[in-house]
Amino acid sequence: MILKPSMRSQVLPMPVVLISTVSKDGVRNAAPWGCIMPILRPLDEIAIASWLKRDTLENIRDTGEFVVNVPTVDMAEAVDICAKSFPPEVDEFEEAGLVPRPSAKVAPSGIEGCVAWMECVLVEEILREKFSLVIGRVVHLEGNDAFFDERGGMDFEKARPMSMILGPEGGCYTRPTTGG
Amino acid sequence: MILKPSMRSQVLPMPVVLISTVSKDGVRNAAPWGCIMPILRPLDEIAIASWLKRDTLENIRDTGEFVVNVPTVDMAEAVDICAKSFPPEVDEFEEAGLVPRPSAKVAPSGIEGCVAWMECVLVEEILREKFSLVIGRVVHLEGNDAFFDERGGMDFEKARPMSMILGPEGGCYTRPTTGG
Repeated sequence: MILKPSMRSQVLPMPVVLISTVSKDGVRNAAPWGCIMPILRPLDEIAIASWLKRDTLENIRDTGEFVVNVPTVDMAEAVDICAKSFPPEVDEFEEAGLVPRPSAKVAPSGIEGCVAWMECVLVEEILREKFSLVIGRVVHLEGNDAFFDERGGMDFEKARPMSMILGPEGGCYTRPTTGG
Repeated sequence: MILKPSMRSQVLPMPVVLISTVSKDGVRNAAPWGCIMPILRPLDEIAIASWLKRDTLENIRDTGEFVVNVPTVDMAEAVDICAKSFPPEVDEFEEAGLVPRPSAKVAPSGIEGCVAWMECVLVEEILREKFSLVIGRVVHLEGNDAFFDERGGMDFEKARPMSMILGPEGGCYTRPTTGG
């Protein structure tokens, strides 16, 4: 069947990350993001797609840095709060009760409790009429000790990284589970 | 913990799609792809990231058309076969036992049994030293009647669209399941 526009998004399972940035005035921002993909493996560079009007995009342009936090499904409530539209001067960390985690190589904090943190620097912005593609280099990547063994293998059924299926009523947060 | 390069990819849950194309000589190709994201919602335009040497990329350049097929987890075996490295003259549909599904608006066939089919035309290729970003416009999107209700809502627990967690041993195919 041909899907009408409002039904189209549901066909592609997507990751959910929280992108944390800091504005040029020092205000922290955390925004849920699904439009993200690796472009050079293994996660050396990533791309995110953005609307033209996003505080996150402004902050990345101004500071050249951002952190991609991979939340667990348990963080759904905080992610929902971050998805609300706040003015740029509002600190989403405070609104959503997120605990900042100092980053190793960039100024924006990560978010405690996440599965992993990718600290990124802006490589390039590819600006188009209706969207912008941001290319970031992952300069530091840490996994949460709670979910990784000594070898660095992730217990993903324990970590339960967040993904989503968008749908007519906003869709739902999901987590990956093995196979059939 | 800091993850070594071979362990980095596992932290981001990714969709898995099969991209079907036709070469300028008429040979069908089907390739698994994880590096895909919407750039204009609801799935009006998408971006895929590609290595520079991929038959899929060549075919898209030559013909300007491709189909993004969203497989079910039941199709894992066929996806694995398509992931092997075949010379350009080999038809992955035949190798993997994929049943072609005529497309409405583009030349490449879709793949029967998938959750949904996005027929795309090339808008732009953004070529860089080590990768290429392909922007595609979704000119026709159909969902598989078996998985959608009359309203166009997807029963995703029935459809079980494929996703993946990459890992040190090649990772695993996953499917999204609701929440915690």
